[in-house]
Amino acid sequence: MSPLDRLCINTIRMLSADAVQRARSGHPGMPMGTAAMAYLLWTSFLRHHPGNPEWPDRDRFLLSAGHGSMLLYSLLHLSGYDLSLDEIRNFRQWGSRTPGHPEHGLTPGVEVTTGPLGQGFANGVGMAMAERFLAARFNRSEHEIVDHFTYAIVSDGDLMEGLSHEAASLAGHLKLGKLIYLYDDNRITIEGPTALACSDDAGARFAAYGWHVQSVDGDDLETLAAALARARDERERPSLIVARTHIGHGSPNRQDTAKAHGEPLGEEEVRLTKEALGWPPEPAFLVPDEVRAHFAQSGARGKSLEGAWRERLAAYARAYPAEKVEWDRWMTGGLPEGWDRDLAALISETETQPQATRAVSGAALNALAPRLGNLVGGSADLGPSNNTVIRDAGYFVPGRVEGPNVHFGVREHAMAAASTGMALHGGLRPFCATFLVFSDYLRPAFRLAAISQAPVIYVFTHDSIGVGEDGPTHQPIEHLAALRAIPGLTLIRPADARETIEAWQVALQRRGPVALVLTRQKLPALPRERARMPAAAGTPPATPLVARGGYVLSDAAPGRDPDLILIATGSEVFRCIEAQARLEASGIAARVVSLPSWELFDEQTDAYREFVLPVRVRARLAVEAACPLGWERYAGAMIGITRFGASAPEGVLFEKFGFTAAAIAERAVALLGRGVQLNSGT
Amino acid sequence: MSPLDRLCINTIRMLSADAVQRARSGHPGMPMGTAAMAYLLWTSFLRHHPGNPEWPDRDRFLLSAGHGSMLLYSLLHLSGYDLSLDEIRNFRQWGSRTPGHPEHGLTPGVEVTTGPLGQGFANGVGMAMAERFLAARFNRSEHEIVDHFTYAIVSDGDLMEGLSHEAASLAGHLKLGKLIYLYDDNRITIEGPTALACSDDAGARFAAYGWHVQSVDGDDLETLAAALARARDERERPSLIVARTHIGHGSPNRQDTAKAHGEPLGEEEVRLTKEALGWPPEPAFLVPDEVRAHFAQSGARGKSLEGAWRERLAAYARAYPAEKVEWDRWMTGGLPEGWDRDLAALISETETQPQATRAVSGAALNALAPRLGNLVGGSADLGPSNNTVIRDAGYFVPGRVEGPNVHFGVREHAMAAASTGMALHGGLRPFCATFLVFSDYLRPAFRLAAISQAPVIYVFTHDSIGVGEDGPTHQPIEHLAALRAIPGLTLIRPADARETIEAWQVALQRRGPVALVLTRQKLPALPRERARMPAAAGTPPATPLVARGGYVLSDAAPGRDPDLILIATGSEVFRCIEAQARLEASGIAARVVSLPSWELFDEQTDAYREFVLPVRVRARLAVEAACPLGWERYAGAMIGITRFGASAPEGVLFEKFGFTAAAIAERAVALLGRGVQLNSGT
Repeated sequence: MSPLDRLCINTIRMLSADAVQRARSGHPGMPMGTAAMAYLLWTSFLRHHPGNPEWPDRDRFLLSAGHGSMLLYSLLHLSGYDLSLDEIRNFRQWGSRTPGHPEHGLTPGVEVTTGPLGQGFANGVGMAMAERFLAARFNRSEHEIVDHFTYAIVSDGDLMEGLSHEAASLAGHLKLGKLIYLYDDNRITIEGPTALACSDDAGARFAAYGWHVQSVDGDDLETLAAALARARDERERPSLIVARTHIGHGSPNRQDTAKAHGEPLGEEEVRLTKEALGWPPEPAFLVPDEVRAHFAQSGARGKSLEGAWRERLAAYARAYPAEKVEWDRWMTGGLPEGWDRDLAALISETETQPQATRAVSGAALNALAPRLGNLVGGSADLGPSNNTVIRDAGYFVPGRVEGPNVHFGVREHAMAAASTGMALHGGLRPFCATFLVFSDYLRPAFRLAAISQAPVIYVFTHDSIGVGEDGPTHQPIEHLAALRAIPGLTLIRPADARETIEAWQVALQRRGPVALVLTRQKLPALPRERARMPAAAGTPPATPLVARGGYVLSDAAPGRDPDLILIATGSEVFRCIEAQARLEASGIAARVVSLPSWELFDEQTDAYREFVLPVRVRARLAVEAACPLGWERYAGAMIGITRFGASAPEGVLFEKFGFTAAAIAERAVALLGRGVQLNSGT
Repeated sequence: MSPLDRLCINTIRMLSADAVQRARSGHPGMPMGTAAMAYLLWTSFLRHHPGNPEWPDRDRFLLSAGHGSMLLYSLLHLSGYDLSLDEIRNFRQWGSRTPGHPEHGLTPGVEVTTGPLGQGFANGVGMAMAERFLAARFNRSEHEIVDHFTYAIVSDGDLMEGLSHEAASLAGHLKLGKLIYLYDDNRITIEGPTALACSDDAGARFAAYGWHVQSVDGDDLETLAAALARARDERERPSLIVARTHIGHGSPNRQDTAKAHGEPLGEEEVRLTKEALGWPPEPAFLVPDEVRAHFAQSGARGKSLEGAWRERLAAYARAYPAEKVEWDRWMTGGLPEGWDRDLAALISETETQPQATRAVSGAALNALAPRLGNLVGGSADLGPSNNTVIRDAGYFVPGRVEGPNVHFGVREHAMAAASTGMALHGGLRPFCATFLVFSDYLRPAFRLAAISQAPVIYVFTHDSIGVGEDGPTHQPIEHLAALRAIPGLTLIRPADARETIEAWQVALQRRGPVALVLTRQKLPALPRERARMPAAAGTPPATPLVARGGYVLSDAAPGRDPDLILIATGSEVFRCIEAQARLEASGIAARVVSLPSWELFDEQTDAYREFVLPVRVRARLAVEAACPLGWERYAGAMIGITRFGASAPEGVLFEKFGFTAAAIAERAVALLGRGVQLNSGT
């Protein structure tokens, strides 16, 4: 290691320790322990251009161990990204670009939001998949415009999380040879030595997934460089480089201890560390000029790398002008002219016959995929049930992209986190799918997609007790509420074919993650003769309905003001229509409002919302076969489910749980407090 | 294989196929493929007594691949458990004991509720841990009253789930030598051959976790028996027996295909299968007499095994009478005399000083653990932060139980699922812990604990933006709502030391899972001079408060009827007390209600709830630093959080997010619609 190398590495260490100390909060040990390998990777391997963090073909770097954020901020600052030393000084403060854990979208050069363990690991798998998808679509002989690596630093915590198993297994299966992970093997966790809780042979484990595994001294630049070079040369298998490091490297009293992990070293220990590393005690946040100059070279190198790529892209544009147009569209996230042209036909085809909304969703996906081209994804081994296979289009098979479909395997969590990675890579519109009840398995990844506003479409089918015989373990009850509670996501539960198709239209135009919640069972096509929109909005048959979040699906009979409003989503809407008829037969005027998306409805104007749910009509009954949590904001009464489901045919369940037209009508009558005797049927 | 063996195995196969066919729903392929190994295990290895499914020292059997429920129901029926052939005929019907997936508590002999993949795998690890805990506590030389194995059949789906990684890694680390899993390696998933999605070398993977791995032909009883015997003899390492099987075994057109997995074979294919297996086409649900007789032997063997154990237990009682009393208490789930005696002192010690509720929780745990003895558990590598270490008490270390603490490692999901296994094993009161934001990682296990009403205590600390600098990735927003939405759980978010201690008292007396939601930051002790209870309930200082779910913490000044009610939980309560003072200074009479547990409050009498939240006081403001979903049921207005958090010191965050006494008071005034000018402070 040259003196300059050492100086650069110690700069990272001490910037990190100083920032944590100043914030009186943070994780100094990880940046200090991984400074050497991160320095080597960033200055000698990573192809990036600090002047343009958006360069599409840059190598991706993910800090899966997001608690070591000061490592990343130090690297970004030193490399010349738009992250000033003042931001470093403001580490973890209100309004800074240097939050406690790296946040994509906030800090230039931060590829993904990390911190919750295992997520970055799996996001990287998605990034590497995206690279392969794009390469397969766009690269031409002698015109390789997509050719980058995905690197990450991962920790023992990442590797202990189950998510790392799913993601590593998927990466090994798909033969993502351009995925290279440095494992920060510091052998320390929060509770003490990793040996207290874990005896895995990590190398053997990853070899069992089909990874290329090397073990090195994480402070020996030469060995590290050789390992990185070998990893780059290995194109069949993803690479894990097990790098033995020392948490809190250089701190006389904290190195190799759990205390180095999550708290500031303390003023005195910072001083002692500087002394031990031969670093001036003052000033804090010191960046020696020669370090700045050295890192500046990687900026220059990056500029020239991007320049060379832009020349290749220009040559590509000349040779393949149509592909270049498509490339530009994909990379800017645009939708092509006429992208939803086939949906109108699909609506009229499907509008009159009973269909499961999952089946309609499958048809919509298949109508959209050929037009968009960049819809990629699949299911966690439930493709045939989720209706998420793009027909006649091929799969991402080991080592080769033959089409847009992915067999994610029984790996919901990795599927979701990889989809976030694909979305944030740029160029693709990923979707993924499982049963709604298993949205629990991918929730941590969903949350981060929402924080990052990653435009991933989640197809959640089998959305209620309508699952039937599979029973309570497979019947979602709390999941709608639990998803609606997440900030920044859009949930849509369509009620028939038309709403399902419109839901896809909305999803593709929406920022951030969208969950489509769909039935297993068939639903009748809804009548819309009595649908109503404000005059300015156009007549219902022609105007988008789902984009409004909620709408008057079937108003009270002409000339009658509604006595009450029935509000429902999904499979409960048609039952409200039936109840409406029963009520009408007894002289009660009910309006039926379909409310497929709370988030979209809440974004509408006050006037629109008042049109749909007028304040004057206070008798309102919400009907949804799910936990009623939150419905109180729309309705004073609710037919929901507050226990777990049961195993029986779905028709039996809807009856036993009180979701029949008769039960709804009865409850409505009770709500009005009238002594009406309901007619026995309609 | 003898003709009788074959007859027994085919009985299982055809009972399963017939039941699925009759239900027109279910999974015939798995039971048909695993019938041979399940038959062997149940008749030659499993020590169980069908006449007493509650025999404490029985071997445990878990069907992790719960979709193969008909395998388990067939085994239970044939073995002589209280599960009639009529129940088999009623497979998957309303009110039957044979639901789509096995449900603990519903069907005698079903140890855990399974279906969602990976869960049973991890529950079994908890069962095996429980056996070791109990053995360490009770066994004496020549008096082994705890000595059983834990078996499971696990599937490729179980093994693909990340949860299996966490659980297997934990089991290997702890050297759970009496854990024996049969891996149903049928190489078929729902989307097709497993090879479409997975290329793992499962054996090598488990060897890397420290497991003993064998590979066998799953239809060869002799090889299987030898493997099971070796697995039983191996006491250092958990065992995985990779058994090559054939899904839908015997079905001429469905065997080894994905179609055999999740749909009935069809009448014709059932007929062809019977023909191929040399089985009479009629009647359906045939159990030959010699099969019944053969299985009856295992009933007799089980009776004698339990009898021998009861003799050992009687000898134990004579030799160790005090231990036997303790054993009885543990096994019946009782609390010892004076179990909460030390808590009163703890309340008076802590009641006057600011404390983080997580710290008080740690003190309560430490006051309770020595008295109960069977509180076991730990944290997913956050013990020092969650305050869940039982001091001076030792750990479950590899191969040896030295105390009640567990280093679960960074494995939230396995921790929770193993805790469910420990709870359902009997004898222990498990607790587990992580940050509230990471409750997402263990949610699928939490749900199953709720379905099974497993009495697990979850300690969730760092419960809001009070996390501070760690930022949005670590700050729960939606988690309170998402947990409250789960049926059958109790969530308690205490507001100070006293409420925290009472929360532990409630948790230990509660059926089903309880989540304690605790702060990272210190909270002041709350004043209770103006606390009010209905006259019959006793005076507040002496009467339990948290057990009521909610209570009048600080009423309007004496003689004043409240103009409005402020309702809050946890760290927001003291801010409402401050706001109350501000409002009072401006002549507004506010009542402050602390509502630590919605579930408990909703169980109170109408009269009590009316006492706390009288209908006549309609101006109500709820204050909780979380997603407001559902608060509408208690209050017409709400100060909550509908975005993600931010990275900054906690004091800054509470201010920026509007949780100050001033902001609360202002909102209250606005709510009353009065032109009051608030005084600037109190």
